[in-house]
Amino acid sequence: MPKVNTRASCARDFHCCPDIGIALESSCKAGYDFVCLPMVNPRFKREFINGPAKNRKCALTRSDMCLTSQDWNTLVVGKISPWLHIDSDYYHTRTNSELAFKEELTWAAHLGLPAVMMPLRSGKCFNLARCLNEYFVANYYQQQYWVQVPLLSPAAQCDQVIEGLDENMGEDKSEDTWSWWNTLRSLCDHNKRLCVALELTADLPDREVVERWMSEPVKAILVSTSLFLTNKKGYPVLSKLHQSVIKDLFKLEVQVIITGQDRHPDKTIRAYQQYIDHLWQTQDPLDTVSQFAKGYEDFLQSPLQPLMDNLESQTYEIFEKDPIKYSQYQKAVYHALLDRVPLEDRETTEIVIMVVGAGRGPLVRASIAAAIEAGCKLKKVYAVEKNPNAVITLENMKEEEWGSRVEVVSCDMRDWVAPEKADILVSELLGSFGDNELSPECLDGAQKYLKDDGISIPEKYTSFLAPLQSSKLYNEVRSSKAERGKPPEAPFEMPYVVRLHNCSVLDTPKPVFTFTHPNREEAIDNCRYASLDFTVQQDALVHGFAGYFDTNLYKDVMLSIVPETHSPGMFSWFPILFPIRVPITMTKGSTISIDIWRRCTSKNVWYEWAFRCGGQVSPIHNPKGRSYTIGL
Amino acid sequence: MPKVNTRASCARDFHCCPDIGIALESSCKAGYDFVCLPMVNPRFKREFINGPAKNRKCALTRSDMCLTSQDWNTLVVGKISPWLHIDSDYYHTRTNSELAFKEELTWAAHLGLPAVMMPLRSGKCFNLARCLNEYFVANYYQQQYWVQVPLLSPAAQCDQVIEGLDENMGEDKSEDTWSWWNTLRSLCDHNKRLCVALELTADLPDREVVERWMSEPVKAILVSTSLFLTNKKGYPVLSKLHQSVIKDLFKLEVQVIITGQDRHPDKTIRAYQQYIDHLWQTQDPLDTVSQFAKGYEDFLQSPLQPLMDNLESQTYEIFEKDPIKYSQYQKAVYHALLDRVPLEDRETTEIVIMVVGAGRGPLVRASIAAAIEAGCKLKKVYAVEKNPNAVITLENMKEEEWGSRVEVVSCDMRDWVAPEKADILVSELLGSFGDNELSPECLDGAQKYLKDDGISIPEKYTSFLAPLQSSKLYNEVRSSKAERGKPPEAPFEMPYVVRLHNCSVLDTPKPVFTFTHPNREEAIDNCRYASLDFTVQQDALVHGFAGYFDTNLYKDVMLSIVPETHSPGMFSWFPILFPIRVPITMTKGSTISIDIWRRCTSKNVWYEWAFRCGGQVSPIHNPKGRSYTIGL
Repeated sequence: MPKVNTRASCARDFHCCPDIGIALESSCKAGYDFVCLPMVNPRFKREFINGPAKNRKCALTRSDMCLTSQDWNTLVVGKISPWLHIDSDYYHTRTNSELAFKEELTWAAHLGLPAVMMPLRSGKCFNLARCLNEYFVANYYQQQYWVQVPLLSPAAQCDQVIEGLDENMGEDKSEDTWSWWNTLRSLCDHNKRLCVALELTADLPDREVVERWMSEPVKAILVSTSLFLTNKKGYPVLSKLHQSVIKDLFKLEVQVIITGQDRHPDKTIRAYQQYIDHLWQTQDPLDTVSQFAKGYEDFLQSPLQPLMDNLESQTYEIFEKDPIKYSQYQKAVYHALLDRVPLEDRETTEIVIMVVGAGRGPLVRASIAAAIEAGCKLKKVYAVEKNPNAVITLENMKEEEWGSRVEVVSCDMRDWVAPEKADILVSELLGSFGDNELSPECLDGAQKYLKDDGISIPEKYTSFLAPLQSSKLYNEVRSSKAERGKPPEAPFEMPYVVRLHNCSVLDTPKPVFTFTHPNREEAIDNCRYASLDFTVQQDALVHGFAGYFDTNLYKDVMLSIVPETHSPGMFSWFPILFPIRVPITMTKGSTISIDIWRRCTSKNVWYEWAFRCGGQVSPIHNPKGRSYTIGL
Repeated sequence: MPKVNTRASCARDFHCCPDIGIALESSCKAGYDFVCLPMVNPRFKREFINGPAKNRKCALTRSDMCLTSQDWNTLVVGKISPWLHIDSDYYHTRTNSELAFKEELTWAAHLGLPAVMMPLRSGKCFNLARCLNEYFVANYYQQQYWVQVPLLSPAAQCDQVIEGLDENMGEDKSEDTWSWWNTLRSLCDHNKRLCVALELTADLPDREVVERWMSEPVKAILVSTSLFLTNKKGYPVLSKLHQSVIKDLFKLEVQVIITGQDRHPDKTIRAYQQYIDHLWQTQDPLDTVSQFAKGYEDFLQSPLQPLMDNLESQTYEIFEKDPIKYSQYQKAVYHALLDRVPLEDRETTEIVIMVVGAGRGPLVRASIAAAIEAGCKLKKVYAVEKNPNAVITLENMKEEEWGSRVEVVSCDMRDWVAPEKADILVSELLGSFGDNELSPECLDGAQKYLKDDGISIPEKYTSFLAPLQSSKLYNEVRSSKAERGKPPEAPFEMPYVVRLHNCSVLDTPKPVFTFTHPNREEAIDNCRYASLDFTVQQDALVHGFAGYFDTNLYKDVMLSIVPETHSPGMFSWFPILFPIRVPITMTKGSTISIDIWRRCTSKNVWYEWAFRCGGQVSPIHNPKGRSYTIGL
């Protein structure tokens, strides 16, 4: 099980620090977990252009001997000198800043600090990116670089103050600080060691701007003591809006850095930490789905191939625990029975139900319960299952619980020669993207033993897609290695089942492919092609598409994992992710199109997909299923 | 030496072909090199959705036995049926077209045709791309696919006719056919087997639209007989404008396909072929540089590393033949001497010249000739050379030709302890990008034995960059393998020396880095950083940047390989190419920025570069010289 933090992690930030031992001790005593310190005394002016300072009479900074290595490695985040201006247009300023930056980063590496923090003041950060890259390429060291970005740019904060004076001017002058970050990390090729330390600002940007940060590697939030209000008892507290930003970011397990002087000296500096921890403790409890998903956040899984592989006992056990799915199935069978058997025939008509892909029997149980509830007579329930291990469970169930009304059939549903035809065919063959576990092909095979007017449960299912931004998932895909014999781009050419967490969905999901059952077309074609357009409301970097599905089990009895209509409490499916080889930059109001194909041969099924945005056109991903297919 | 075509390659196109043997024979007799044929009789309606045609009484098309394999493989380009509409919105049309397309491509592969031709009618070609990709992935076969694209879209041709009526409406309705092609090849991931067959249209687009096609893999141009005029003698001829497009495309060695019925029957169909060959024969002769470069077009070479490696005799020999370079050097030394020695002192003043990097002596010879021309006395000419093999040549030259006024010094110029100081330091250490063979570092080392008021020839040099479009070069870079121990993106992270040919330069080159000599700065810093903006006049796909340089040898005595100021006839340098990992799409009027750094350590020098366009930001290429450095 994943480690759950029982308290907020909190740091105290020092602008200058005469004695590091005392600073650290007092902070720890006041309940803080670590400190942020300038690495070099700001009074030491350094002159580099003609070589390192020649005439300085003393050391650049305090000795590494003043703390143990253990303390340096765990308790101190180093801060880069604020006077550095690495992207200056002036040669001397730029060059001196570069050299000083290098000196400080080298010192931080020598000390083994867990992280170094540096401010980002604008989108002009090309030379900063180049300097940082030197440290990413020399890969000895796993230090993180925390880039300090204000939630609202200073220019935009000024605008908000004078809002109303000239709104259009305000629009133009305000700057999107996310785009600063996006420029920097793109130049650094999305390096994982580059992270964000957000600065909470007095004024806050729009809701969706905060939302977008939820898709970035935010490690810390800086909260100035000047943002705190004082409550009736004299303690520091934050406004509702500030609280809500911090609580949102807690979902990413961010650490909080308290910066600025103590403005509540009678309560001591401890009061700020206590307040932050209070926010941590009073977070909303996790809903059932989030609880179930704990530890699986952003973890990429290959979609199940239940036709190729047999599920394990443990997998059955987990999915059988879903509190919603089987009660919906029972409801669907119940309504189907009521519709199929008129009240006056309930005593006489005998119904045949076939559960295809019966697994360890939950749908058999739900079907029997539905029949009892509806007062219908069951002639027979066939439980067809291809996995011989699950058949053992079914046989035992029959023996102990169901009796002779159930017949267990150990057979692939596509090959079974049924002794009679069914009134209702019940199956649960859907994947996170609806048809991606080949439900269409299986049910097309099974429908030959469904009566002409018989009912399939589910009767219809539809997949959905929406554009997604997520540095985290992009890096997870990128760091996967292609299997032997697959092309190097293979990790970008397969979908993944994943609990979406450190990400942001950029537009409302739209329907993609629909299948209905039984399918009475003369020639069944399960190939599909769809072309969908999406619009984003702010600048974004698209890293892939999130996939979902919903299904009508029977009439309006639904299951859904589409966020807008998600069946409450149902945890059987995580979303699916379709990656993009090269992230696509989008500007506010622009449109991205995805073309997606479902391709079929007699041996397997696969998806191909491609993107268009403005004039940019991606290659088609997974052509001819070269990187990924689903075996029939 | 490369093969030079002595005549135009010409094909005859058939819309339908009752007897292929006769068609081929009559075409060959009329002087044509190959034919284009529909692969399937258009009268055979095919019905696929319920399986391949069940009720057809005869074969789909003519037997493969009607020609020998040899003829199929060399003389026939197959044409895809014109009725296919693979991107139709209608399921039945689309699906039937897909199946028919597959049938025809499979047949073409079976016959072993060298190329298959298919029309592209709009930018809506997503499903066509997917179908084609199947054949690119199944890589058994090296057949080319020629995509037939009109130079001007039908809509734009209509517009030109009604021009003046409503110019704005015309703007909107006209379509850029290059963007159709760009969409298709991007979806097909720039596959090399996907080529262009341009359709010459009655009306022609702007000059720069034709220019842009020069950067694409154009293999053929279709010329309709309806475009021909009749000259006084009754022979078919083309307008000046049409001639000039064909002559431009001849530079890419395109083949010409004559299509449509014979409109000059008294002259026979042979007259068209004869006219095209006449155009071929009357091409402008190649200039000296193009002659020299024949066979090197678009061939990527790693830049020389003359400090690390010793040049071979053959390399010296080639460069010594440059008709311009050494005469400019002689002129530069001549003017430097005139300025340095007043007329009245010519008899008495003795001048010391040092040639550093003397090679096999051309600059020594030029210096002596200049002194004689200027009537100046030479005390000594030192010929300093680190390559011991070249020193042998120099010693022999001294013995046989120069005598005691020349002193040969076998030594690296940076290490030499000179017995006296020089008036003039002459060197030729420049690379295609100016400083890229480390001239700055070498001359900084050598200037210690230059008098305080001494002259360096060259005294200044500047590199230039311009954005470039070229499918060909992108694919050449992409198909290079990274060296062992280098990252997989290494081929995109090094510059290449290359004779630019199948490409188009998208904006005027701009200056990048300048170096002047001697450099009397207290602390010499040869690191550089520049940020340049370029604007394109039409939609484009940027594949990299072309690099050039110019140099002031002395005052206004120049050498230049910048296209706008290229020294006529000088062939010593080809341009340099800085690649881009992912091509960047640009729309008309938009701006692309390149940030480029020259980085130095005590051991080596390298470039880093990155691109920005709209919101798109590339990673920094070659961070810390991980893929490419120049050794000191």
